[in-house]
Amino acid sequence: MSPSAHALFAGEGRIERLSPANRGFAYGDGLFETMRVYQGTLPLWPQHLARLRVGAQRLGVTLPDAAFMQAQIAAMLEGVGAAVLKLLVTRGDGGRGYAPAADATPVWALSLHPLPVVQTDLRLHHCEITLAHQPTLAGIKHCNRLEHVLARAEVVRAGMDEGVLCDSDGRLISATAANVLVRRAGRWFTPPVERCGVAGVLRGWLLAQGLLEVADLSFEDVKNADALALCNAVRGILSVSSFEACRWHAHRETAELSMPLMHAYPMFVPSEVSP
Amino acid sequence: MSPSAHALFAGEGRIERLSPANRGFAYGDGLFETMRVYQGTLPLWPQHLARLRVGAQRLGVTLPDAAFMQAQIAAMLEGVGAAVLKLLVTRGDGGRGYAPAADATPVWALSLHPLPVVQTDLRLHHCEITLAHQPTLAGIKHCNRLEHVLARAEVVRAGMDEGVLCDSDGRLISATAANVLVRRAGRWFTPPVERCGVAGVLRGWLLAQGLLEVADLSFEDVKNADALALCNAVRGILSVSSFEACRWHAHRETAELSMPLMHAYPMFVPSEVSP
Repeated sequence: MSPSAHALFAGEGRIERLSPANRGFAYGDGLFETMRVYQGTLPLWPQHLARLRVGAQRLGVTLPDAAFMQAQIAAMLEGVGAAVLKLLVTRGDGGRGYAPAADATPVWALSLHPLPVVQTDLRLHHCEITLAHQPTLAGIKHCNRLEHVLARAEVVRAGMDEGVLCDSDGRLISATAANVLVRRAGRWFTPPVERCGVAGVLRGWLLAQGLLEVADLSFEDVKNADALALCNAVRGILSVSSFEACRWHAHRETAELSMPLMHAYPMFVPSEVSP
Repeated sequence: MSPSAHALFAGEGRIERLSPANRGFAYGDGLFETMRVYQGTLPLWPQHLARLRVGAQRLGVTLPDAAFMQAQIAAMLEGVGAAVLKLLVTRGDGGRGYAPAADATPVWALSLHPLPVVQTDLRLHHCEITLAHQPTLAGIKHCNRLEHVLARAEVVRAGMDEGVLCDSDGRLISATAANVLVRRAGRWFTPPVERCGVAGVLRGWLLAQGLLEVADLSFEDVKNADALALCNAVRGILSVSSFEACRWHAHRETAELSMPLMHAYPMFVPSEVSP
């Protein structure tokens, strides 16, 4: 595979260049999905597409025809083993001014990236920036990501692996690019994403399986957790080894939670990781 | 002038295409300024550049060399009478993932647009969407503008001219693309922009002249106002004629507020408007 393969489209046609009048470029007026490729396919595609549709409905963005998208994805993934595929759909091109054109043709992009090395036993930074409450945009994976960019910059500066993000009320929300899973009294909990945060695809799968429950979680709940883990659709479920003064050494619970996931999606079996 | 003239740059060099790996496209990871052109110049350039610098510092974005930007702007404005110039500076190109590269070369764009018809006696819609509190991003003109895009879509659907945006606590913040000025007891007030909203260039000028004061304003304050006006750096000061059940007919106060502005910046004299 060419690790930087990419393709641009306007509606159901291929285009060669991104216009500077693109509304994704101007306002972050779009949505994206970052998906794990396994043996030339996207095992979690139905879930990613479902979230994309919720986002498009929320923003009033027209999606390209799903069958056409799938055909383009299949063409790009031909011969690709393990990788990451990013799909970004913008509202399209538009003039100056915030008003979205009602009939804009969506401009969208596919790009193929190498599968990252999946690291476990993560050391978490406590991010200073907090996530703002915006119910209209919460849950969906839109392209207004400055909060996450600044949070990630903090993690890099701190020399840590990932970061814990709270909202302005001090409630736990997520990591910068993953959902947070908190083990307490024999059960796994994750915060709601109705005020801020992203409804992660793997989070959704764990909830649907009854392996995870939604609960408001404070900072204290995190510190008193029996185990802490992160999950996202590219890396799977990852154990956490430290957060501030807290240390977690036994990751049996995290390994147990990963079992049904690896059974349903063999791409998350560690031995399957290398391309 | 060519009304759609545009130019793209990476640092101090011209480029031909926008990369799909651009972080403005991916995350709205950038800043912009929308400036009024008058007789081939940008009379408010120092104020726009100052705000851009505050934003760049806040986001950790490297700005292109100011002298180089100014030279490119001057070249684009040669022979242009009245117009709007948009400057958009992104953090540059980057791989997948939120982490900003420390040494990214900024990718930036200039685009020239026709001066809009300046409408007065505006009818304002009360936007359903509210602005989220995010002190880290408040005040600066960053490219995460989905809130404003959705607010503007509401205004268009309502068939109105502009929209009033409140924060999640019900406090008045701004219009979708202008600051709000509220006349009460012989003085003009505008809301603070430390929690959300944009520190408009004209708002800043009016404050610096002592013609405007910052105050927390409720919805009731707006309804009980003696006059309501909007201001932005492209259109100047605009009278408001209605907001929900309220009507304002006498715009003497708004006209009075405009006098010193037109004196300092003749581009805002109505007879000077047409290109």
